[in-house]
Amino acid sequence: MEGKMVALYKMKPGPGATLVEDADIPRIGKRDVLVKVLATSICGTDRHIYKWNQWAESRIHPPQIMGHEFAGEVVEVGEDVEGIQVGDYVSAETHIVCGHCPECLTGKYHVCRNTKILGVDRDGAFAQYIAIPASNAWKNPRSIPPDVASIQEPLGNAMHAVMTGDVSTKDVLIMGDGPISMMAAGISAAVGAGKILVAGHHEFRMDIAEKMGATHTFNTKHIDPVEETMNITDGEGVDVVLEMTGSQQGIDAALEVVKAGGVVVWFGVPGERRSVDVAKAVFKGVDIRSVVGRRMYETWFQVSNLLASGKLDVSPIITHVIPLSKYEEGFEALNRGEAAKVVMHPWE
Amino acid sequence: MEGKMVALYKMKPGPGATLVEDADIPRIGKRDVLVKVLATSICGTDRHIYKWNQWAESRIHPPQIMGHEFAGEVVEVGEDVEGIQVGDYVSAETHIVCGHCPECLTGKYHVCRNTKILGVDRDGAFAQYIAIPASNAWKNPRSIPPDVASIQEPLGNAMHAVMTGDVSTKDVLIMGDGPISMMAAGISAAVGAGKILVAGHHEFRMDIAEKMGATHTFNTKHIDPVEETMNITDGEGVDVVLEMTGSQQGIDAALEVVKAGGVVVWFGVPGERRSVDVAKAVFKGVDIRSVVGRRMYETWFQVSNLLASGKLDVSPIITHVIPLSKYEEGFEALNRGEAAKVVMHPWE
Amino acid sequence: MEGKMVALYKMKPGPGATLVEDADIPRIGKRDVLVKVLATSICGTDRHIYKWNQWAESRIHPPQIMGHEFAGEVVEVGEDVEGIQVGDYVSAETHIVCGHCPECLTGKYHVCRNTKILGVDRDGAFAQYIAIPASNAWKNPRSIPPDVASIQEPLGNAMHAVMTGDVSTKDVLIMGDGPISMMAAGISAAVGAGKILVAGHHEFRMDIAEKMGATHTFNTKHIDPVEETMNITDGEGVDVVLEMTGSQQGIDAALEVVKAGGVVVWFGVPGERRSVDVAKAVFKGVDIRSVVGRRMYETWFQVSNLLASGKLDVSPIITHVIPLSKYEEGFEALNRGEAAKVVMHPWE
Amino acid sequence: MEGKMVALYKMKPGPGATLVEDADIPRIGKRDVLVKVLATSICGTDRHIYKWNQWAESRIHPPQIMGHEFAGEVVEVGEDVEGIQVGDYVSAETHIVCGHCPECLTGKYHVCRNTKILGVDRDGAFAQYIAIPASNAWKNPRSIPPDVASIQEPLGNAMHAVMTGDVSTKDVLIMGDGPISMMAAGISAAVGAGKILVAGHHEFRMDIAEKMGATHTFNTKHIDPVEETMNITDGEGVDVVLEMTGSQQGIDAALEVVKAGGVVVWFGVPGERRSVDVAKAVFKGVDIRSVVGRRMYETWFQVSNLLASGKLDVSPIITHVIPLSKYEEGFEALNRGEAAKVVMHPWE
Repeated sequence: MEGKMVALYKMKPGPGATLVEDADIPRIGKRDVLVKVLATSICGTDRHIYKWNQWAESRIHPPQIMGHEFAGEVVEVGEDVEGIQVGDYVSAETHIVCGHCPECLTGKYHVCRNTKILGVDRDGAFAQYIAIPASNAWKNPRSIPPDVASIQEPLGNAMHAVMTGDVSTKDVLIMGDGPISMMAAGISAAVGAGKILVAGHHEFRMDIAEKMGATHTFNTKHIDPVEETMNITDGEGVDVVLEMTGSQQGIDAALEVVKAGGVVVWFGVPGERRSVDVAKAVFKGVDIRSVVGRRMYETWFQVSNLLASGKLDVSPIITHVIPLSKYEEGFEALNRGEAAKVVMHPWE
Repeated sequence: MEGKMVALYKMKPGPGATLVEDADIPRIGKRDVLVKVLATSICGTDRHIYKWNQWAESRIHPPQIMGHEFAGEVVEVGEDVEGIQVGDYVSAETHIVCGHCPECLTGKYHVCRNTKILGVDRDGAFAQYIAIPASNAWKNPRSIPPDVASIQEPLGNAMHAVMTGDVSTKDVLIMGDGPISMMAAGISAAVGAGKILVAGHHEFRMDIAEKMGATHTFNTKHIDPVEETMNITDGEGVDVVLEMTGSQQGIDAALEVVKAGGVVVWFGVPGERRSVDVAKAVFKGVDIRSVVGRRMYETWFQVSNLLASGKLDVSPIITHVIPLSKYEEGFEALNRGEAAKVVMHPWE
Repeated sequence: MEGKMVALYKMKPGPGATLVEDADIPRIGKRDVLVKVLATSICGTDRHIYKWNQWAESRIHPPQIMGHEFAGEVVEVGEDVEGIQVGDYVSAETHIVCGHCPECLTGKYHVCRNTKILGVDRDGAFAQYIAIPASNAWKNPRSIPPDVASIQEPLGNAMHAVMTGDVSTKDVLIMGDGPISMMAAGISAAVGAGKILVAGHHEFRMDIAEKMGATHTFNTKHIDPVEETMNITDGEGVDVVLEMTGSQQGIDAALEVVKAGGVVVWFGVPGERRSVDVAKAVFKGVDIRSVVGRRMYETWFQVSNLLASGKLDVSPIITHVIPLSKYEEGFEALNRGEAAKVVMHPWE
Repeated sequence: MEGKMVALYKMKPGPGATLVEDADIPRIGKRDVLVKVLATSICGTDRHIYKWNQWAESRIHPPQIMGHEFAGEVVEVGEDVEGIQVGDYVSAETHIVCGHCPECLTGKYHVCRNTKILGVDRDGAFAQYIAIPASNAWKNPRSIPPDVASIQEPLGNAMHAVMTGDVSTKDVLIMGDGPISMMAAGISAAVGAGKILVAGHHEFRMDIAEKMGATHTFNTKHIDPVEETMNITDGEGVDVVLEMTGSQQGIDAALEVVKAGGVVVWFGVPGERRSVDVAKAVFKGVDIRSVVGRRMYETWFQVSNLLASGKLDVSPIITHVIPLSKYEEGFEALNRGEAAKVVMHPWE
């Protein structure tokens, strides 16, 4: 499809972004599809690229369209595409995997050695159209509105972490209060966890976590997470910790409060090495399960089914819905800690 | 503790039961505890013994006190008892296991080769007091009232089946509409299953199943379960079937509607051999997991935590609460299909 | 690549096969590769097609080249092929799957609803060349000779069954003495099973099973498998049964001799429904795991690694190595029960 | 049983041990058994107690009989003992667990919060007799000689680590060359691991590891374990690492060489906190499974079955068999790095 479109670019190294009104609509390859973007949401990764931190500096090659979380409608399909048709309502798995490395051949696509990421290694979704490989398109049920369908990708991260933690009927501590922690609280509640503790820094976010289903929240600026967790659990600790901060405090607290024989999920990515009490892990017989990305596509089925069942309501997490052109408002609200998920509409 | 008590006996072979007003309070051994029964509920097994069917004829040795589901307070402990004290509020795992056979030594207590069952192989709980091994006592939180705590044992059967089926975020068909099917519907909802189908024979019971969380119910007297399940699931079938009837129809439907690579839980116990389409199971790569009893004591933790979390409300299932002396009303209501769980109070 | 080749065809409905000296070398599509076949082996499925039984009648559309087990060298690759090059030494996964059905999307490729099978639904490997999708090519290490590499596909079936049974350190009964049972005995021994019992009908085959690592074999024509298994195991039974006959005797014996809490693998495909003692399965808490095909490609890694390690020697199973032109000798030896795996060389 | 016996004591704080010729034969409680010790072996823990390091100082209360690994014959049983008889040939699980804490009630006996250890918290096995709880006695088959049966307890540690790593058909790196690493190499070979790499410091020990089944050994004093592992595996790394050193080098190498989606078993216990590249673990999606003790009694069945099968020969590890009275020789050979397992006979 030829023509022009609106798109939000990282035009050159440095902070900020540029809204381009007459960008070219992407050309698709023979196994690709072109999607008209109805809603797209801001991820932490986008914020790194926007701010242009060290990681962005080393990884991003401007000019490039930002963004990777979205929902939209297929408007064109490549000649070799099977299983996706014009008119399909889709979101996208953002990891583009090779399919023939040993990881892919054993179903571990989420750690494919040749992974390329939408909006990081190629043009992204903060635009009116995006081209993606057909094999990355995920067909949404019509019952899920675009604003919600747009955030399924990070919801998949949370789902992957929660299901890896295996929390049903168990007590769980979630270290961190970012959007994925809020989602993890909601999913934990939906799959029948017992006590759901969320430890964070921002009252605004922990209020949302409570709306999602957290049974206890506390601010680790003022409250020691180990002491508080032991109090809430009558000294027993929790069966599962979802460590979503990557902080020294979080990693230490996790091994401290998890029950013997329990599970710690490492999800948060520290910027540097951490000190770990390995002897404690061994004597307690703890399983530490590291989680990255989403199981392709088992996690997507889980997310989609849980949303469709009505047992998970993510609306408290979507704090802002704005036109793409007002993107600065979105990034600023996130910077001020006054937003969770910001959804943008590129056609308004 | 010496003295007399009220107890409901099977006094001799044949139908019915006898309320004895001056039964001896049971003597306890050095590893036993004596429990004052606050609430006790009627199980299908009790109904077999009451009616005196073939199984009862072959297994039960009257005179014996009936019943095995209960909650109560410990009033006496044997001299070698550790971990249980007078005043503890308990229910009981009804399988008394040996602890030293290979099954027990590998944690498969639920299939211990030397199992004895309360109310079947020794005096039971339809009485003001019951003696049980201390190692079978399960300490209840005070937040769970006796009527509810009393039905934890069958709730454990349902929990064992549901957790074995691993239903979170998945679609599940429950074949059967007895109390354990109702419980399984409730637990499936609490742990985040997607569609929850219950196929039964009694509108009264399926109404309760819907209150518990079933999303679809249908009467297999009039409706073909395979056709209906395929309709509801857009021809995809379900991820998990909990087969709780033991009937030829149920066993056939299970293999028919389960997705390739899915799970069938065999829980219902047929009275005779069944015809099975083994080739279908193989070509679909189905896992058939047979479930009996409760994991000791993992299942009890699951039940207790889920009840304590408030995410599972079993009150729709407790249709009758009556004095023990009115036991006939309870059995008759069950016979007429007008009851689910009947709880009896021996002190009223 | 254009030209002529030798190929063994099922030319028309009915028994037998036809060797064609001037068949066309297959044309490849853009995602296919052309393989020069160095060795190809006869499977039970080929025997059904050769004999032209009911199943073959209903499934096979002559004229078609038979065969699906092989090893060879890639001589041409389609324009869109990635990861496979001319000169690669390959075998093939014979299930050609769609990649976009729910089964494929959740890694259950072995039960893909759109599976096509080499040598069954399209031209096969009893020829000097075969065209296969590049994604079905499995790169062999050079250390595995073609005759052995050729039988990796059925070896994968055996591996899938054994790994599903999880036999390490455990006692296992293998019902059946066909080539896959022999392979299963060898793999069980290589992964450290305890007692390995093989129950069959042919002394010739059971001798091979013993060479592969079976610790006990017995002939079920004369010896009751339940009684014998209980004798060998001091009345304890076995932890795992690999049921590879599909027979009523095999299915009954499996549930009888498996320990409580044990595992039965259903692998054999009966031609009709079977009578199953479901109540026994339930009371014993048995897991019945149905196995079909190979995990793609986890099973292939397992097979390849075990062969490369030298811990599995399949040479006793390869009883015949003959030129393709002498195919009748191979099929006849199999019919007489005097062969296990027959490997054919199309270039001799 | 009354009388005197020979026993090796830690008589008072400080290095060394004292052989007492007229120690009292232990009295047994009503659930205990008295075992005549036929063979007993020296563990690393015994060496800590012998040397009297900081840990021993803080934990051991002399006077106490040392030792916990043994095999012997039951000569007396307490009045409440079931399942064990005079004449039984037994070894012992050395963790005496409470049976009623949440860990025990969910089958995680190996992390029981009330664990007491033979030879650490109460009198041990370096003696002619030892009293143990009947529930800790493990009945050996007569086919396993006492010298071998004596080392089943540490063999259980190795088995627990290997089975947790799930190494069958996979490549494994074992960091460390102590006796449990040698055992792990042997068990890995017996259950069909592919490449088995052992990285250690002592040629003497690595020679034994090779006899046990290691396919590659290298000395980390001179050779970088990461570089060497990548060379041996053609740059792919290993599927599983058994980290048995607790060293910074071992913990770093493990995360470096394990494949994405692979498994690291933490078994070695560091004396201080370790620096861990958590981000690497997350991005690679690694499972870190901490292993302590033995699964009670699943691990014992595994060890016993594997020894009985003849597939595991531990004789290369038993470098010394000496009378108990020559205990100094044993400890000294271990200190010089010239011994692996030292077995002592208290009746010679």
